[in-house]
Amino acid sequence: MRGVVMESAGDVRVEDVDSPRIERPTDAIIKLTAACICGSDLWPYRGAQPVDHQSMGHEYVGVVSEVGADVQSVKPGDFVVGSFCISDGTCEICKDGYPSRCVNGGFMSGAQAEYARVPLADGTLVKTPGVPDDSLVPSLLAASDVLGTGWFGAVAAHAGPGKTVAVVGDGAVGLMAILAAKQLGASRIIAMSRHASRQKLAREFGATDIVEERGDAGVQAVKKLTDGYGAHSIVEAVGLQESMMQAIHSARSGGYVGFVGVSHGVSIPGSDLFAKEVHLMGGPAPVRLFLPNLIRLIWEHKIDPGKVFDLTLPLDKAAEGYKAMDERKAIKVLLRP
Amino acid sequence: MRGVVMESAGDVRVEDVDSPRIERPTDAIIKLTAACICGSDLWPYRGAQPVDHQSMGHEYVGVVSEVGADVQSVKPGDFVVGSFCISDGTCEICKDGYPSRCVNGGFMSGAQAEYARVPLADGTLVKTPGVPDDSLVPSLLAASDVLGTGWFGAVAAHAGPGKTVAVVGDGAVGLMAILAAKQLGASRIIAMSRHASRQKLAREFGATDIVEERGDAGVQAVKKLTDGYGAHSIVEAVGLQESMMQAIHSARSGGYVGFVGVSHGVSIPGSDLFAKEVHLMGGPAPVRLFLPNLIRLIWEHKIDPGKVFDLTLPLDKAAEGYKAMDERKAIKVLLRP
Repeated sequence: MRGVVMESAGDVRVEDVDSPRIERPTDAIIKLTAACICGSDLWPYRGAQPVDHQSMGHEYVGVVSEVGADVQSVKPGDFVVGSFCISDGTCEICKDGYPSRCVNGGFMSGAQAEYARVPLADGTLVKTPGVPDDSLVPSLLAASDVLGTGWFGAVAAHAGPGKTVAVVGDGAVGLMAILAAKQLGASRIIAMSRHASRQKLAREFGATDIVEERGDAGVQAVKKLTDGYGAHSIVEAVGLQESMMQAIHSARSGGYVGFVGVSHGVSIPGSDLFAKEVHLMGGPAPVRLFLPNLIRLIWEHKIDPGKVFDLTLPLDKAAEGYKAMDERKAIKVLLRP
Repeated sequence: MRGVVMESAGDVRVEDVDSPRIERPTDAIIKLTAACICGSDLWPYRGAQPVDHQSMGHEYVGVVSEVGADVQSVKPGDFVVGSFCISDGTCEICKDGYPSRCVNGGFMSGAQAEYARVPLADGTLVKTPGVPDDSLVPSLLAASDVLGTGWFGAVAAHAGPGKTVAVVGDGAVGLMAILAAKQLGASRIIAMSRHASRQKLAREFGATDIVEERGDAGVQAVKKLTDGYGAHSIVEAVGLQESMMQAIHSARSGGYVGFVGVSHGVSIPGSDLFAKEVHLMGGPAPVRLFLPNLIRLIWEHKIDPGKVFDLTLPLDKAAEGYKAMDERKAIKVLLRP
């Protein structure tokens, strides 16, 4: 079958690779309907993370083609959305609501392909109410990671009624965090963005205010919008030092910072955190926890996160998709096997 | 009047200083019944923080002797406990439950003395049900900071029924966090301590387990006690790099770290925090929020935090008290003006 392999930084190829097969009785094999390129895939692409002949892809929707003997919740023919985090759903950490840190789990890979093996299928996949209309596929695919991650950022930031939420980062995850904050009932949503096309999408997803400044100037702009207090809730959706500190300092004391940008070279001074006195929570999103609700919202046409995909390519043109995202010519690329 | 002044690192004197007077209509003057030396007073004492002719003392109980024209909640003759943080009780941050970061507030000083001025008296002081028996004075004094701070650590760590709580640091704040975790209903409390006398007190306050190891070995010991998961709740009560990382890594994913040790030179790698996926919250304790409940528990003899004072000295011997705490010969020193 065909699958995307990153040979080395910047070198993405679509190659003939071995088709996956059931390796453990808890595995499922799915035939992918759609996959996509993640902002986090750009870290190795740009050389910021080591990579060597890596099968790419961890966001996926498709149809189950085969299941292991122990799989109970899905069967061949089911349309499923899976979390990018693999989880058994039964360990104490899963039961506490953090399947993203399942003690028996891990991360999905190899989903930018025709078929993929999903370990711990019962704890990782959620089937949809039926086979979706093709128009719903992008939104369901978004739920697999980018929407679930933005949603987690907003939940970790305690977005809700009466709250002012600021989102640092206007990539796909940041935009999804805006959508999530809106759904969670936030009263005011500040998008921190300096790109006109992303500002437009941010407003479509629910942003009420735009702040173009970054760093200290960005912090001051958020304070100015919030009577000097800072926002109640901040979502950090970048993962760099400046964005993390901008997030922490844009929050009011007692506020909540949810950080979902994969942390690269970030170092948080304890004294800043102590003086600011904000809640900080982040990490890989426990998407599996949110999937039933997200699927329902999408199925009922309450949300349209699929709008975040602004470029669709056949799987064989994956390299072009990576390039477009790297050059910020596309927000997020959907791949059709 | 007599008051404690830190001239420079290591040089503590009791001098004749000006008596405080009402400066603003929201001030109160109190005649101190007792004050004490804080672990945080040792940072400048040891040269880890600049100090120059500083009036010391921010933990205090006493009798109101005079109030400004706008003070409503206390009057001369009332016995009061005050928070070490000054707060107006009316700003949005106070109303959100973080009077320790009141936008009009600050920190108390000059309470190691015969009299002290308390700014924003209505938002800072709480009167007791009557003039307490002398035996209750140490416990009430503890509520002013050390108990309130340990309590905040336990609250920020979400200590409660069914939870395993680990406390990093066996100083007075750490010991109070143990007492707090017990009161909050924690099922298991792990004291991380290697000093026999402090272990004994930790057990009296509610510790069920003792871990003597530090750093990675301490983390492994906590994991061993918790089926490999780590503790649900961690209180960090030191403020150094090793203790903070020990706290973060001793928590299970999805768990809560409350840090109340004043942060000195701590730098938290974002990647550790992202990978660990724990909640982190800390800073100066919003003691004012807890005071009514703490005073009630003390008044009804439900808790005896005053046991944390293992040396009582007259105010004039304050220098001796600093020395004893610096050399860890005393856990916490009570001063009687």
